[in-house]
Amino acid sequence: MTSIILSLLKYEAYCLRFKFLKYFMNKFQHSLDFDKIDNIQSSDLTFQLHKCLINFCRKMEKENNTVPSDDVLKQYFPDLPSGPLEKFRKRASFDWRRMKFIYENFNTIKLKHEFYTFMENHTLFHHSDVTPSLDEQRHIATKRMYAIYNENFLPFEKIAADPKCFQAESEALFMFDSSLAVKLSLTFRMPSNAITGSGRDYHYPLVEALSKAEIGGCFALTEVSHGSNAKGMRTTATYLPEKRQFVFHTPDFEAAKCWVGCLGKCATHAILYAMLVSKGTNYGLHSFVVPIRDPKTLKPYPGVFVGDLGEKIGLNGVDNGFVMFNKYHLPKEVALDKLGGVDDNGDYKTPIRDPKKRLGASLGILSGGRVHITGISTFYLLKAIVIAIRYSAVRRQFGPEGSDEETPVLEYQQQQIRLLPYLAATYAMRIYSSWLGYTHIMMTINKYMGADEDAGARGAELHALSSAVKPLFGWTARDGIQNCREACGGHGYLKAAALGELRDDNDANCTYEGENSLLVQQASNWLLALWPRRHAPPPHPLRSLAFLEEADRLLAQQAPWNTVDDIIEPANLVHTYKWLTAFMLKMTYEKVERLRSEGRDPLQAKNESQSFNAVNLAIVYAENHVLSHFYESAAQFAEPSCRRVLLRLVSLYGAFLVEKHLATLYIGGFYSGSQGLALREGILQQCAALSHEAVGLVDTLAPPDFCLNSVLGQSDGEAYKHIHASVTSRPDATSRPAWWRDVVDWQNYLKSKL
Amino acid sequence: MTSIILSLLKYEAYCLRFKFLKYFMNKFQHSLDFDKIDNIQSSDLTFQLHKCLINFCRKMEKENNTVPSDDVLKQYFPDLPSGPLEKFRKRASFDWRRMKFIYENFNTIKLKHEFYTFMENHTLFHHSDVTPSLDEQRHIATKRMYAIYNENFLPFEKIAADPKCFQAESEALFMFDSSLAVKLSLTFRMPSNAITGSGRDYHYPLVEALSKAEIGGCFALTEVSHGSNAKGMRTTATYLPEKRQFVFHTPDFEAAKCWVGCLGKCATHAILYAMLVSKGTNYGLHSFVVPIRDPKTLKPYPGVFVGDLGEKIGLNGVDNGFVMFNKYHLPKEVALDKLGGVDDNGDYKTPIRDPKKRLGASLGILSGGRVHITGISTFYLLKAIVIAIRYSAVRRQFGPEGSDEETPVLEYQQQQIRLLPYLAATYAMRIYSSWLGYTHIMMTINKYMGADEDAGARGAELHALSSAVKPLFGWTARDGIQNCREACGGHGYLKAAALGELRDDNDANCTYEGENSLLVQQASNWLLALWPRRHAPPPHPLRSLAFLEEADRLLAQQAPWNTVDDIIEPANLVHTYKWLTAFMLKMTYEKVERLRSEGRDPLQAKNESQSFNAVNLAIVYAENHVLSHFYESAAQFAEPSCRRVLLRLVSLYGAFLVEKHLATLYIGGFYSGSQGLALREGILQQCAALSHEAVGLVDTLAPPDFCLNSVLGQSDGEAYKHIHASVTSRPDATSRPAWWRDVVDWQNYLKSKL
Repeated sequence: MTSIILSLLKYEAYCLRFKFLKYFMNKFQHSLDFDKIDNIQSSDLTFQLHKCLINFCRKMEKENNTVPSDDVLKQYFPDLPSGPLEKFRKRASFDWRRMKFIYENFNTIKLKHEFYTFMENHTLFHHSDVTPSLDEQRHIATKRMYAIYNENFLPFEKIAADPKCFQAESEALFMFDSSLAVKLSLTFRMPSNAITGSGRDYHYPLVEALSKAEIGGCFALTEVSHGSNAKGMRTTATYLPEKRQFVFHTPDFEAAKCWVGCLGKCATHAILYAMLVSKGTNYGLHSFVVPIRDPKTLKPYPGVFVGDLGEKIGLNGVDNGFVMFNKYHLPKEVALDKLGGVDDNGDYKTPIRDPKKRLGASLGILSGGRVHITGISTFYLLKAIVIAIRYSAVRRQFGPEGSDEETPVLEYQQQQIRLLPYLAATYAMRIYSSWLGYTHIMMTINKYMGADEDAGARGAELHALSSAVKPLFGWTARDGIQNCREACGGHGYLKAAALGELRDDNDANCTYEGENSLLVQQASNWLLALWPRRHAPPPHPLRSLAFLEEADRLLAQQAPWNTVDDIIEPANLVHTYKWLTAFMLKMTYEKVERLRSEGRDPLQAKNESQSFNAVNLAIVYAENHVLSHFYESAAQFAEPSCRRVLLRLVSLYGAFLVEKHLATLYIGGFYSGSQGLALREGILQQCAALSHEAVGLVDTLAPPDFCLNSVLGQSDGEAYKHIHASVTSRPDATSRPAWWRDVVDWQNYLKSKL
Repeated sequence: MTSIILSLLKYEAYCLRFKFLKYFMNKFQHSLDFDKIDNIQSSDLTFQLHKCLINFCRKMEKENNTVPSDDVLKQYFPDLPSGPLEKFRKRASFDWRRMKFIYENFNTIKLKHEFYTFMENHTLFHHSDVTPSLDEQRHIATKRMYAIYNENFLPFEKIAADPKCFQAESEALFMFDSSLAVKLSLTFRMPSNAITGSGRDYHYPLVEALSKAEIGGCFALTEVSHGSNAKGMRTTATYLPEKRQFVFHTPDFEAAKCWVGCLGKCATHAILYAMLVSKGTNYGLHSFVVPIRDPKTLKPYPGVFVGDLGEKIGLNGVDNGFVMFNKYHLPKEVALDKLGGVDDNGDYKTPIRDPKKRLGASLGILSGGRVHITGISTFYLLKAIVIAIRYSAVRRQFGPEGSDEETPVLEYQQQQIRLLPYLAATYAMRIYSSWLGYTHIMMTINKYMGADEDAGARGAELHALSSAVKPLFGWTARDGIQNCREACGGHGYLKAAALGELRDDNDANCTYEGENSLLVQQASNWLLALWPRRHAPPPHPLRSLAFLEEADRLLAQQAPWNTVDDIIEPANLVHTYKWLTAFMLKMTYEKVERLRSEGRDPLQAKNESQSFNAVNLAIVYAENHVLSHFYESAAQFAEPSCRRVLLRLVSLYGAFLVEKHLATLYIGGFYSGSQGLALREGILQQCAALSHEAVGLVDTLAPPDFCLNSVLGQSDGEAYKHIHASVTSRPDATSRPAWWRDVVDWQNYLKSKL
């Protein structure tokens, strides 16, 4: 037995499996009967290990989901400061601390608490009042990155014990500063995963060096003139068998790798995707781990022309860079060729025959990126909605005739409809992205353990889902943040309100890791292929195809509800969405078929069925799954007063979504007459009802004030005092400008013609 | 005669009328028979002058609308550089230079040319590659402001001869830098107009000092805790008859005037709105011209606490400020009290009895601001759409199987639908905002001449229209710019793409000069009051109520069109919009009435009818007018090949607007069955057809490259070359960061725990 374990440990000793084995060996040495299985095959051992893992997960899940007592909770979340928000807080019908458990558990709470405590007390973690120069922004993000990495808040054991901690770490970092969070992930975790996934045992020293922060990585895929079309990329890695070397070369600037996060100033190594050329044949994109800068001096190596892309709309702490290679020679070992590559002679070998699948596996790491982005978008929207709702509760304007007291703007219908559907969306997204992240990690773990029988189906479904949900969440955050910004009126335009930065940072989510409008095709293409098989669809362990099996029955129905209450009943909205998803799929399928029958080739037919059809189909498919998931989570939540409010949020979210597709419901005949008006009335009613819960609901979501860093959104509700402090504390706020002579004596630099 | 003229000239000698008189006296001394009218009344003289003015305008309009020859035009617009855009340019079916005359004339072309030539050749007018510090941004905007003002590009004579020049000036400035444009307008023009409109003859020296740029003004209305609710403001001006002084006082920071453009660092005087208190009575908001800083030293006067609001989301060249007064005594003459104020004894006198009307007249200057903003939003969107369409024509991605050549992304349906409806919207807005600006100036001129019999009706209609069109255009620009940004993919996220800045600057349009969602109530309230009078509506010289008289007939109709061509025929879309406007008005009116019958007071009933109703009503009302105006302009355009393309743009714009309200068309029974699908199909068809014209259409719109200042949107189409130049020309682009030791030796500032 020991020998098997040892050989397993040696085999890919650097990879994640190694960590798992080590961890579970320690954890379960007593439950595994080593003597008895001493002679069994390694696959049996894996099976045994997997059994242990499942038992362990079940045990941990129960443990992880234990809710602490009120007293313990209050230690983590003390009472919020009294002040102008108190009136609204008292109106909430639920306990804001208990509500947290709809999307987190005590582990995630404790972990985030560690992060927040560390950051709040560290001098490196103080937000600046004015935007620092580009160089300073990068400098501070880099220093903060090392400070956080150095603390090792989330050792492997914690992830294994509760994979939800992974997202909690991400949340804590994004709540403070997105550039810091992105840099950490790109410098250490992503390269490490890429090497572990596609490399070999001799790459282990690199993983170790990354874990000690001796080197820093980056991920170089996109080229200046090719992003989505990976096939068109032109950076080459040509193999020279006589030297056992690869020559990396960039023919021109259009082929330069670009948008590489952390490459601009810092990275020492790049996970590089280049066209592998051997013996005159181009084998397509392959990954390599390429030294860029000397880790001792940070000077680029000869043959490497590397630089910084300069200022961006947001995320300016991240040094996005470009790189060009000029006949840059490197030993063969730079190839991350577990999934395919050349042997010493330059002959191509791969365990995966289909080149598409090989590239897919090699780029698989990007799908983790998309899952992560669903969380990131959610975090940005979450901060914005906290700011806007708190401010709307303390901002007063106008009031009843004859009254001295003005009305909080949150009580006006138009303010409610701009904010509360996005508050509901934030809950839906927060719950969903937690689940999606957890699902993705468990899939990865299971994959390493070789233990998921549904792995193929689950992978395909997750790929489709994440390709649709990432755009949905990026766009929802975009629109929600903008509504928050406008709902805060003029003061929302202050940098100190913090809404502009959230918008700028989220903006990247709409185009990176797959430009949204293109990315959704991954989902719609998958769905279109399933339509003819709808009566016997493939396994869909994530249950996103529930609408498909009953599509024909659904499409024969009309909405039977005529009262407002019925129309906006959560279960009915979930049903409505199933109809809508089935209808969009059928419509799109029929349009593609019609175009093909008119003579378009398959690609063309799909291209001409994107707008109003395939794009909307993918979004509706994502919305359908998010809504169903939100409904189930809410309905199952144990605490009754929280559950009541959650179900109201489900109703508002569902009705808000349905309203966006109202015309299609009429076109398809599901709605008729005044049902659309009843739906709209229902939205207004739910908004009015939820306006009383809104401040409580954002107290649940809100990060600590120092993270929120908004004069409008602090937990004490003293928006005007914070504006006052912010405005008057800047050293040059009330001083005469140094260039005052250029005002009073402008004739000095211009010859007066007036 | 001479004596009358002299007395007229003396009477309000400082006001705009003076300039007009002087101008027309010079111009028409021969056509006025001075001897004969020597003894007539001044009102007759005004009548004579008005007759002259009308003759003059007719003559000038004809002259102004003369289209120059091709050779002359080419002097102003030389051929665009050849390159990757050429292929698309050749596809356009019209002459891009001729097309300009749909919204401008030779005067505006010449004036803009003067601006562009000056700026392009002046060292002060060079865009910086990196965002300068806040202080530098303000400094450079200030210097540029004086440089432009000093040139006096637009003397009064030019405006009088062709009021369209006014908007041309604005366009030229906004095309280069919005902060510069805003500062110029706020420092000189707005205060000058405010003093001319509400002041007296002894204020003339101030107007003269402004005209010589010896002093600089600003407009102080908004307070920290009160914006839209002007009645709630708390800065006071208390009159002391014994001293003939006003005492200005700000009770606390919440009553500080804020968001005052140009007050942060520069302004020497403020047009201040304060509560006028005399003998214990508060007479409401009145305007004053208040010295803030010594024009010789730029130091604030004792009693004035003035400062800078700090960094904003955009427009950071504008020094928005706040000011608090601490028992600040000023002589009585600071009151701009032509429309109402106290006499020496402190007794209140006003020529306008109704205090609402008095305040309205005093704030009338803001409506000019709203008209101006419709232009500003248009300019931002215009720049964005030029950038995105040019880049989409040269960016290629994917292609037909077996072909080496990739397809320009502009040829993909989903790219077209994101951009081309906004291209159509840009034309609609550009044409409309020119017209609205012209209409507003002519109204102002007529008002000064006392020569518009319909002045009241025209004023009310313009107020309603501008209150709805300003939000519509701000929001359309917001969504259009965002689409442009996303359609440019990753590279659109570069600061050098220039899209982020357009979004940030436009963002202010959505909340200043009336927060959009509140502002629209000015229009919806006006419309609601008209519904019961629909069979005999008041005069509406701007023809925005054409839908109202025939409302009952319209609402009995159903759309009779069943083919795609019929549905998207411009005239039919215009008709559809009339139905929609009438329906929204009826629906909203009935909702308000229902709520009132259920017991809500009038204010409450209106508040609860905003979402889905009054807000949409105002927007639909604006869209209806813009669409009709676009249709008429296009249909009347003389040049046939331009007209064909313009009508296609009308069709796309109309169908795009209608699609947004599609559900309402079904709910109201105007559309049924598959008409909505035909409409959507029509949008796609028009997009496909217009994709060939798109590059030509943006060549028509585009400002010179140095103004556009976008690596993606230059007229040579060499996006990648410009990215290359931009990325590598920054001095620190490829150098090691000064803080490189903080990367390689991070243990230096952190105790390593790894």
